Amino acid sequence: MTFIQTDTFTIRGYETDASGRLSVPALMNFMQESANRNAIAYGIGISDLAERGFGWMLMRFRLRMHRYPRYGDTIQVMTYPTFVEKYFIHRDFKVLAQDGTVLADAMSVWLVFSTNKRAMVPLPDFIRELTVPPGIDPLPKLPLKPDFQNSTFQPIDEKQVTVGWLSIDQNQHVNNVAYVQWLFESIDDTMLQTRELAEIDLVYRTESHWNDSLRVQLAPETEDSILHRILSENPQKEVLLARSRWKTSL
Amino acid sequence: MTFIQTDTFTIRGYETDASGRLSVPALMNFMQESANRNAIAYGIGISDLAERGFGWMLMRFRLRMHRYPRYGDTIQVMTYPTFVEKYFIHRDFKVLAQDGTVLADAMSVWLVFSTNKRAMVPLPDFIRELTVPPGIDPLPKLPLKPDFQNSTFQPIDEKQVTVGWLSIDQNQHVNNVAYVQWLFESIDDTMLQTRELAEIDLVYRTESHWNDSLRVQLAPETEDSILHRILSENPQKEVLLARSRWKTSL
Repeated sequence: MTFIQTDTFTIRGYETDASGRLSVPALMNFMQESANRNAIAYGIGISDLAERGFGWMLMRFRLRMHRYPRYGDTIQVMTYPTFVEKYFIHRDFKVLAQDGTVLADAMSVWLVFSTNKRAMVPLPDFIRELTVPPGIDPLPKLPLKPDFQNSTFQPIDEKQVTVGWLSIDQNQHVNNVAYVQWLFESIDDTMLQTRELAEIDLVYRTESHWNDSLRVQLAPETEDSILHRILSENPQKEVLLARSRWKTSL
Repeated sequence: MTFIQTDTFTIRGYETDASGRLSVPALMNFMQESANRNAIAYGIGISDLAERGFGWMLMRFRLRMHRYPRYGDTIQVMTYPTFVEKYFIHRDFKVLAQDGTVLADAMSVWLVFSTNKRAMVPLPDFIRELTVPPGIDPLPKLPLKPDFQNSTFQPIDEKQVTVGWLSIDQNQHVNNVAYVQWLFESIDDTMLQTRELAEIDLVYRTESHWNDSLRVQLAPETEDSILHRILSENPQKEVLLARSRWKTSL
């Protein structure tokens, strides 16, 4: 059995940002929800894994925004697995307007960790043997390590964030979208007011937890792109690396 | 014409909190969205008012939680105006499970301000003359000034928050639910882990804006209730007052 998940979302007021566009964190939440549902259909949902002592971890996510929907617009989020490898499963997302226009798309890479060992493990057989849907047209495989991961990082700004109750999920980990919210909040006012996010490429390096103290850093790369880094303290670790690209708002 | 708004929401993963229950901010967002839609049906939506140089302001909100829905549950949010007065319009909310059980309810009071004068005005005629739906059973009218507004407030804790881009709406004001998120994040860990919110009574005193610096204060009242205050700086003003009541989690 193969499954292509298709969910319909009508944009609610609080899912738009101050510019009136669908906010990127809201869209990423939709995608995350559709991925959950698709995993449940495949029998590899969070609780299917938890019963067997495993958990999912998002490792890479790259979102490209083509056009932003607005309040009241109805969009479709489609998602499906594209490649299953020894350690990694790849998943694509497409976000469509009602006329079929592609508003956004995304690629992602997931790994499985053992709850006991607290370490990454090869994909268990019940995941390994799943069949990707026929007839899909996968986006290019996302590199596990993007080029910017090796760039020198000279932060010009840093904000401190303490992980609050509303940013953690039932596994007591910070949810993947919360980091993106913090990245947004670290960007300067003019950029937020005059530009819109065209692309964000994320590397999730390690987890963080309730009450952790995080340092959200930012380093301009080009006129249109910014590098981001989130560090935890005690012990100091890289939690997230990212590159965002921006285009002039329409 | 009268309108009772009924919206159906199926709880998504990111709308639950670390306990697996629907988060209170997510529920308040649903309610806000249903209120918007009901106002649009009545011809008194945000843009109907904006065209005429007016805006809505939430003044009071009191939410009572009876039972928390969980991931995948489908709930109905109903809302309708209950009383229309010279300065204030009252609106009730009911949140129902699929079997009709009341999961939560809320009362609210709204006022209208003039965009030019930046001041409260009597409800314009096109709002004043609306008819509340027949056959509704309004909750008791919410007092404009709750008893705790006159209590002395001795904060035992204070957190500082800077208003970020994702907390403001298209009017460039902090959205009503963001304050409740900040209140939650100021509450101590044991309370959050062992209790659930039974009731929250909110007084919105003045607006705040992007990049404002806010002080989120907390004063225990009884074993089961907490008083909250949010102050802005420069100029120092009371932005929000609240009382929350907590019961042991089931």
